[in-house]
Amino acid sequence: MYKGKFISLEGIDGSGKTTLKEQLRIQLEGKYELLMVREPGGTDISEKVRELLLDVRNEGILPRAEALLYAAARAQVVEEIIRPALNSGKLVIADRYLDSTIAYQGYGRGLDIGFLKQLNSLCTDGLKPDLTLLLDIEPAEGHRRRQKGTLDRLEKEGLEFQTRVRNGYLKIQEEEPARIKLLNGHLSVEKLSREALQHMKPLLPTESSRL
Amino acid sequence: MYKGKFISLEGIDGSGKTTLKEQLRIQLEGKYELLMVREPGGTDISEKVRELLLDVRNEGILPRAEALLYAAARAQVVEEIIRPALNSGKLVIADRYLDSTIAYQGYGRGLDIGFLKQLNSLCTDGLKPDLTLLLDIEPAEGHRRRQKGTLDRLEKEGLEFQTRVRNGYLKIQEEEPARIKLLNGHLSVEKLSREALQHMKPLLPTESSRL
Repeated sequence: MYKGKFISLEGIDGSGKTTLKEQLRIQLEGKYELLMVREPGGTDISEKVRELLLDVRNEGILPRAEALLYAAARAQVVEEIIRPALNSGKLVIADRYLDSTIAYQGYGRGLDIGFLKQLNSLCTDGLKPDLTLLLDIEPAEGHRRRQKGTLDRLEKEGLEFQTRVRNGYLKIQEEEPARIKLLNGHLSVEKLSREALQHMKPLLPTESSRL
Repeated sequence: MYKGKFISLEGIDGSGKTTLKEQLRIQLEGKYELLMVREPGGTDISEKVRELLLDVRNEGILPRAEALLYAAARAQVVEEIIRPALNSGKLVIADRYLDSTIAYQGYGRGLDIGFLKQLNSLCTDGLKPDLTLLLDIEPAEGHRRRQKGTLDRLEKEGLEFQTRVRNGYLKIQEEEPARIKLLNGHLSVEKLSREALQHMKPLLPTESSRL
């Protein structure tokens, strides 16, 4: 058991996670001891794993090996960053966590979901978020938003892939409705952050009870 | 099921695996379609993981992340090299495989053995050797032999560590005596290769039955 709270943000590419995260940062900074992490980077070692993943992507890395590399980066982030922060009472917000693995590598790319769940449990030693906010959006809208910037490989895999990932996310949410809350990614960021904070409220200490 | 045969060599540092491997190569080359692999390298991608492991060792990589990186390298070697070779009927000899993980990271460094066994099974998709030759040697003798060359980090961890690893190997062998055969590493390489070939004989096709 730990003193802090752990929240993850999930959703397909272009669903608005980054915008929501920045909005939450503005709303929460100063009020809570906040730690924002993104996967698969976040530590020196996980950044190196991330570079390696980008580097070897066109050299025939096999899905099982790729999943294990992601898991290695995550294990390092969990033990070096997330767990200590939670132990010291911080509010940790992760941009992608366990559910991304199942949605992207499982539903999106067809890896065995049982294998991925075991891997998730191994690499985090069972650490699950207290709350997950799933930003749901039509893949076509996500695609439209993303076209503003440069597309990375995963983004390029197109609408069909994003649709599989989205449907995967929705299945995951159905399996764990108590932990995972669905947000309508088509709403404005103001509405979204209000809904997000509403879901977070029961987890956060009130002004008076905070140290 | 595959047509080939899969043999792994195990033992503490200085137990003579490399010498035995070279002797086996001399004895078997030309008679069998042979593939020799060493872990954690063996493919472009696993070599890069290996470099990363060497690179980050002094930067606080945590044991769970390290184990996952080894597992990623192994997953790539298994799917890219070992399984295709076995499917095409080759005799595969691996310098270290699953038992090294349990002996070094489990018994040697104290990682949870249940975690490592699950990881082994995930990264290989259950591929076990048909035969494992465990070279057993007194850690002091292994140490003496190794002092001829440059010591790597694992080798430097000294006798106490090597003793834990050796005892670990002996426990693993007791658990799977049908697969793992114990060889006395203090014997001459000629005697060792004779014993090794004796253990391999039931697995190898006879001269006349070979294609």
